[in-house]
This record gives sequence, structure tokens and C-alpha cells, in this order.
Amino acid sequence: MADPRFYTVAQPMTLGQVADIAEAEIESGDRAREMRDVAPLQDAGPDDVSFYLNRRTYRQAYAATRAGACFVGPGVPRPQNGSTVLLRTDDPDRSYALLSRAFYPDADIAGGLEGEGVDPSAQLGPGVVIGPGAIVGAKAKLGANCRIGANAVVGPGVELGDDCAVGIGASVRYCLAGDRVRLAAGVRIGEDGFGFASDPDGHIRIPQLGRVIIGNDVDIGANTTIDRGSGPDTVIADGVIIDNLVQIAHNVKVGRNCVIVAQVGISGSTTIGDNVLIGGQAGIVGHVNVGDGAKIAAQSGIISDVPAAATYGGSPALSNKERMRQLVVLKRITQKHSGNR
Amino acid sequence: MADPRFYTVAQPMTLGQVADIAEAEIESGDRAREMRDVAPLQDAGPDDVSFYLNRRTYRQAYAATRAGACFVGPGVPRPQNGSTVLLRTDDPDRSYALLSRAFYPDADIAGGLEGEGVDPSAQLGPGVVIGPGAIVGAKAKLGANCRIGANAVVGPGVELGDDCAVGIGASVRYCLAGDRVRLAAGVRIGEDGFGFASDPDGHIRIPQLGRVIIGNDVDIGANTTIDRGSGPDTVIADGVIIDNLVQIAHNVKVGRNCVIVAQVGISGSTTIGDNVLIGGQAGIVGHVNVGDGAKIAAQSGIISDVPAAATYGGSPALSNKERMRQLVVLKRITQKHSGNR
Amino acid sequence: MADPRFYTVAQPMTLGQVADIAEAEIESGDRAREMRDVAPLQDAGPDDVSFYLNRRTYRQAYAATRAGACFVGPGVPRPQNGSTVLLRTDDPDRSYALLSRAFYPDADIAGGLEGEGVDPSAQLGPGVVIGPGAIVGAKAKLGANCRIGANAVVGPGVELGDDCAVGIGASVRYCLAGDRVRLAAGVRIGEDGFGFASDPDGHIRIPQLGRVIIGNDVDIGANTTIDRGSGPDTVIADGVIIDNLVQIAHNVKVGRNCVIVAQVGISGSTTIGDNVLIGGQAGIVGHVNVGDGAKIAAQSGIISDVPAAATYGGSPALSNKERMRQLVVLKRITQKHSGNR
Repeated sequence: MADPRFYTVAQPMTLGQVADIAEAEIESGDRAREMRDVAPLQDAGPDDVSFYLNRRTYRQAYAATRAGACFVGPGVPRPQNGSTVLLRTDDPDRSYALLSRAFYPDADIAGGLEGEGVDPSAQLGPGVVIGPGAIVGAKAKLGANCRIGANAVVGPGVELGDDCAVGIGASVRYCLAGDRVRLAAGVRIGEDGFGFASDPDGHIRIPQLGRVIIGNDVDIGANTTIDRGSGPDTVIADGVIIDNLVQIAHNVKVGRNCVIVAQVGISGSTTIGDNVLIGGQAGIVGHVNVGDGAKIAAQSGIISDVPAAATYGGSPALSNKERMRQLVVLKRITQKHSGNR
Repeated sequence: MADPRFYTVAQPMTLGQVADIAEAEIESGDRAREMRDVAPLQDAGPDDVSFYLNRRTYRQAYAATRAGACFVGPGVPRPQNGSTVLLRTDDPDRSYALLSRAFYPDADIAGGLEGEGVDPSAQLGPGVVIGPGAIVGAKAKLGANCRIGANAVVGPGVELGDDCAVGIGASVRYCLAGDRVRLAAGVRIGEDGFGFASDPDGHIRIPQLGRVIIGNDVDIGANTTIDRGSGPDTVIADGVIIDNLVQIAHNVKVGRNCVIVAQVGISGSTTIGDNVLIGGQAGIVGHVNVGDGAKIAAQSGIISDVPAAATYGGSPALSNKERMRQLVVLKRITQKHSGNR
Repeated sequence: MADPRFYTVAQPMTLGQVADIAEAEIESGDRAREMRDVAPLQDAGPDDVSFYLNRRTYRQAYAATRAGACFVGPGVPRPQNGSTVLLRTDDPDRSYALLSRAFYPDADIAGGLEGEGVDPSAQLGPGVVIGPGAIVGAKAKLGANCRIGANAVVGPGVELGDDCAVGIGASVRYCLAGDRVRLAAGVRIGEDGFGFASDPDGHIRIPQLGRVIIGNDVDIGANTTIDRGSGPDTVIADGVIIDNLVQIAHNVKVGRNCVIVAQVGISGSTTIGDNVLIGGQAGIVGHVNVGDGAKIAAQSGIISDVPAAATYGGSPALSNKERMRQLVVLKRITQKHSGNR
């Protein structure tokens, strides 16, 4: 279930309504049965609707799911529990997107902010300073000595620990943060992730219903963007320092004390271990793991898992050992052929 | 002529005034004749002043131009119409920049915004919600159910269709957009393009007098920047989805349903076809064409045209077929030489 | 000494207090002696505390320093003057960071801005226009005809010359700028540099006590970030034009009339000569020199000095001459081996 501090789920819907909204067919289920929410396979219970894609990463969760109903493509059999209602559709993720939008119609890019200044329902610790033009949303909680910069925005329900600072014009939404977190000017925490269900007719936005969880002593540079999770959370652990203009996509996990230099991009659902160093302008694809203590050279392109303590560079990136081997061979070849005129 | 919703042209000027402002010499024309505007060669009429650079891309337009007067370098003959007054200068684009600034003195980076909140001359459809601190300029038009985020800015004359959302602290200027367009926090639509006339003494900004035209169902990520056209427009077609921190330069055309991942950069006047996929951190030079359905790998550097449906990668980028061929050859060589110790 | 227009130093501290705050040991000095400030080795006087790292770039300054006291690692001898008090610590830069934070407790990311609109102590030249929601801090000085965009922020003590423009939602802090400087929407001038003292337990922010010095006729694109210096200044000389989403780190010097295309990143303390052209998405490491008139291709990775007037490309970058040589050799090899089946 999406965190009710940030998301309000609509009234329950019958399976019949679900099928109509999502353009799917009920396979031997009760049209009048009520469903209450959407959830990924591993989290869904008997009142939740989920979806299955015929990919390796989904199989185990599908076999074990307890979902009350599930969007599936043609020919997919029931999961092991035997009681999940199958909702047939040509496009399970598109159906899920349509249903998610119906359950969460208010997950709104423009932010649910209504009043100037600090909402009366927000809780401010002692010593909090609010800059001119800054806005703090309903039920937000700011710990002791937080400072909110001029024209910055703290969204509804956001919780910041003690001694945090939000820079000028920055925005932080759908976020729970620890103590001594510093966001420079123009930082964007908690915007929608880049999640769409695509078919030849176009792209349907999948509601992003997760959060950004930030530890203690995290420092984030100017105009950096960290999207909120799609359902799981985006997580930045204690002690991480992030430079300017960095992009961190939905569901990324960054481990403790990592250093991420300017203009790095980390794609969705990738996991970065503790004490990893990522040089400027490096890019990391989605759904990979970078081990503890790894070092990624500037401008690298990481396209698969990186072992702990390894040093990688190049695009596509290789371990330094492998790069050295290639360079030695190439050098030998070019010298031989240069002298060979 | 620049769109009068966004730009106000100054009073007409005589050719004598034009020559003085632009530091050019009139070649056999009437100094008292009045000129009303500046325009590119292909759009200019008898009351407009244009400019010609001795480059391949200008020749055809120059031959056919109907411009009343034209800045040209030494030795350039009249165009075919025979009536265009030649204005001789060592630096035709610098002269044009100087004249453009005189015709459009108000094209202002700081925005022409005067009052707090919504300007009385703006038109708001039913259901529009304006966030705290947001500003809507004179004569802007917002369709039904548009939501403008906290501290966001909609510039004078901007038109958004129904159900659009402008994120927190975002700004949109010199723009006409369709329905269901979503701009995340910190997006910058319609700033000046990077257009300068340069000589050894420095760079003179060329007024950017175009617009940003956005179709329906377009989604644009946090802190992304899309510059307005220089005279022609920058165009984002229906169904395009753009991630965070992307740069789209002036006069770029992006076709329907394209997917542009985070931190991509597209340089000026490049045209992207329909259904193109551009991976994260890829860069595309200016003035090239990318065909329909092409796929550009992450971190690629595209330096020339890409055929429809092709897959390109690397920097500088090659087609996947060509890259495979090179890899096979290189592998054969390095294996041979590795074993050759 | 940090510029008192921007930074307020705390009361003097005794050497005993200094040692306690910085977790260091006094080596044969008077615990009651008062110290007034922190300063780099080359600037420090008898009332200042400095720090020494055992690296090549520090040796000359250490030998000649006039600092009253200095954090040093184990075994480091006194500098030549013989009177500098040594403060022993395992981590000289961490000690310095701790002491800097005590001397400058208010160097605050959230900005020291208190009132809406223009602070009564700010000085505005004739013809200045302040947009709605814009904020101008205490003792700021705006020259004639400056225009401050909607929701933009000019920090305390900032000085802009005549005819400057600050774009919508942009922020400029700790900055002294010349005439005709234009900052597009979302620009971030003067945020903290990425400066930390790191050890296995984590990263301690080093207070950034420098400024951003901008010349005349400088143009900076949307959402670009230029950090202030750490103690020295970040400097952008006359006539520089910078595109969107560029990152310029602390202490960088950019020479006259340089052209910096979108998404370039320049790391800390690097010096760029005059009339340098840097193509889009290029990256330059810290502490290198790029000579006058050099040309850096798009997407290059510069990892060492670049001679004046050279053309470099690739990642890691080589001179065009060297790249051509390698390409010729490689082509010869691959042709030979392709034909060799």
C-alpha cells in the first residue's frame, strides 16, 4: 500500500469496474468482488490487484504471489496459490497503469500545495527558519533548527530531521529524511520517476507511488534530481555526498558514504553499495549492482554488475585490469604495425 | 514576423538607420526607404531585412529570397529577384544581430512579468488551480483543469491546452502547448537559445524570436531545458516523453512518441523522427536528421544523419552492424597478438 | 580573510580552543594565544590557522608560510619561519574543516534571506525592475537598468553592474559581477563547492568561503550551476558565453570570450585560457590548465593539460594529430586482418 502520508487511495472498486477501467477480461472470477488497491506481486494481498510480465525477473514473485487479482498476458497460467483471479489483457503493464491512475487520481505533478507560507497543520521544531516565499505543505514535519531557503518548497507530509537545510528554490516532496541533510539551490527531490507503459500507440504514465528515503548527513548539490520510487522507494543512505546536476532515477538505492560527482546519471532500480566513488559524468544502466567500495571512473558507462572494490572505467566500462591488458596488446600491435611501413 | 503574442516589433526604420545601427554600407538603395522587420531569407518580404552567409545551407534560400534588404559579405552579388538592396558588411550575422536587437529591444531574459499571481488579462478555463507563489503573465491562456505548481511561472502570452500541469518552480515562456502536457519541477521551457554572432572581439547575442510548440500528451522531467526557436520554432510533437536534466536546443524538432532518457543533449536545428529512442547521456550534434524508429544507445555521440530504424552506438556513433564488424576484427587481432608472446 | 561582504568571522579563539575543536595537539605553543581566522598557507598571517597536506602542490607554500599556526600530520617539521605553531593531527584537512565551521558558523546553504522583496539596505540603480516574488538580500547592489526575474533571488551582499538580467527562478549568491551579465532561468551561481574532508568514518563539509567573480558581457544558460570558490574565487572573465546545464566547480578560472556548450562539466581548480571552445558534454578534470584558443571536441574527457591552440577530442582526450595517427594505424591493421581470413 502506498504511504498514506503522501497518497490517498480511492474507494474500493469491483472486479467488474477494474476490468472495464483496465481494458481486461475477467477469467472465472466474481465481478462484484471488491478490490482495494494496486500492489507489486511480492507485496500484494487478497484485496490487491497486481500485474505479471513474462520476464525472468517476474517469475519467482508470480509463483509466490498472494494477489487477489492479476493482469496477465495470453496463455499465462494461474500462480501456485490457485485463487488469484486472472485479468487477461494484451498489455499487462498498460492495464496496471490505467488502474493505478484510477486508484490514485491525485498523485499530481503540480503538488497539492494550497496556501502561502507554512500550512497550519505542519509541525515545526524549535529554531526552524523559513525563508521568504518558501512554502511548507500540510502535515509536513521539520526537526529542530531546519532552515528552508527563499522560494523553496517542502511538500505535504514530508519529514525532515534536525538541522536540515533546503536551498533556495529547491523542492522536496514524498520524502522522509534524517538529520543534517543539506539540499542546495534548485534540487528536485521526489518528482515522478520515468515510468511508462508503452505500446505502438504511445506511452501511458504509470503512477509513481513510492517515496525518497534519505539518511543522516547527506549533502546534495545544486539542480540535482532524485526521483521518488515507483512503488518501492528510492533510498540514499547515511553520509552520501552528491554533487551538482546529478540524476538519480526511481528505485535506486545508494549505500552509505558514497561520493557521486557532478552530472552522473544512475538509471532505475540500480543498487550502489557502501563507500562507492562515482566520477563525474559517469552513467550506470538500470537494474545492476555496484559492489561496496567500487570506484567508477569519470565518463564511464556501466552496463553490468561491478564487483566490490573493483575499479572500472571506459564506455562500455571494463575493470582496470582488463583495460590494462587491452591497452598493452593494442600498444604492441600499433607499434609493430607503425614500424612496419 | 515574430509571433505578436510574444514579441513586439519596434517602429519602422529607414535603410539609413538600419545601415547605421548594423554598421553596414547601403549599395545603391534609397536611404529613406522604410523597413519594418527582420526575417530569415526564406520568410522575408519586401519590408524585411535579412542576412546571407556564404555557406551551402544558405545558397538556395538566397537565390529565391524576396527580402527588401540583405546583409551580405564582400563580393556577394544580388539574388535573382534583382530588387533586394545589398547591405555590405564584413560580418553579416553580427549586423543582423545588431539590427534584431534594435527591432526587438524587449525580448528579455527576465521575463516581462509585473504582477503577483494571475494577470487580470489571462484567461483561465474551468477547474484551473494556481499554486501559492505561482505567476501567470498577461494574456496567457490556460485550458480546463490546468494545475500550476507552487512558485511556477507561466509567461505572457503562453497558451496551454486542457489538463496540463506545470511543476513546482518550473517556468514556461514563449510556448504554445496542447492538452495533457506535464512539466516536472524546475523545467525551463522557452529560454533563449545559444545563438551568437562571434568575431575575434567577442560574441553578440542574436535575439531569439521563435517559440516552443508542444503537442498533446507530452511529459517533461525535472530540471530539463528546452530553448525556444531563434526565428523558426522548437517543436516537440504529440506523445513525446522526456526524462530529467535533458537539454534540447533551439529549432530542434522531435517527432511523435519519442523517448528521451535523462541527461541527453540535442544540439540546435537537429530533426528527430517519430518513435525514436535516445538512451541516457547521448549527445546529438546540430543540423542532422535522425530517422523514424531509430535507436540511439546511451552515451552515444551522433555526428551525422541516422537512417530510419537503425541502431547506433558509441562516440562517435556507428551503426550496430558496423560496430560488430569492427569488434570482430579487433578481437581476432588482439587474440592473435596475445598468443604471440 | 573571507570577504566580509559575504562572511562574518566569529570571535577570536585561543589556541587551546582551536586544538579542542579541531581534535589536534598543540606542539610547544601558548594555549592562551588568540587566533582570529583560517586561511590557506599562502594567505595566512600570524593570527591565522592554516593546514598542510603532504603533497607536491603544498610544499612551496608551506616552506614560505607566515601562518600563526598550522595543522600538520605526524612527523612534519616546522616551516622555515620557525615561529608557526604546529597543531598535530592525523587528518589535517578534517581538522581545518572543523575549525572553519567554528569560525564561520553562518555560511548557510539556505541563504540568510529574511524579508520578502527588496531588503531596505539594498542599493538599486536607476531603472532597476524587480519581478514579482523576487528577493534581493541585505546590502546587495544592483546597477542601472538591472532586471530581476520573477521568483529569482539575489543574495545578501551580491553586486551586479549595469544592465544585468537575472532569469526566472534563478539564484545568485556570494557573487560580484560586471555589466551586461545575463543569467537565464534556474541558474545557480554561488552555491557551495563540492569540498569535503573524508576519512573512513565519512565526509565532513569544508566551509566554502570564496566568491564567484564574473566579468562584463557574460551570458549563462538555463539551469547551469557555478559554485563559489572554497577560499580562492571562481572566476568567469569578460565575454564568456555558457550554454544550459553546464557545471563549473569551485575555484575554476574561465578566460575571456570562451564558449562553453551545454552539459559541459569543469572540475575544481582547473584553469581555462582565453578564447577556448568546449563542445557539448565534454568533461575536464580538476587542477589542469587548458591553453588559450584550445578547442575541445564534444564529449571529450580532458585528463591533463591542453596546450594553447590545440584541438583535443576523445575520452580520454588526445590531440587531433595523435588521434589521426592512431586511426591511420588502426585502419591499416583492421584492413590487413579483414583481408586475412
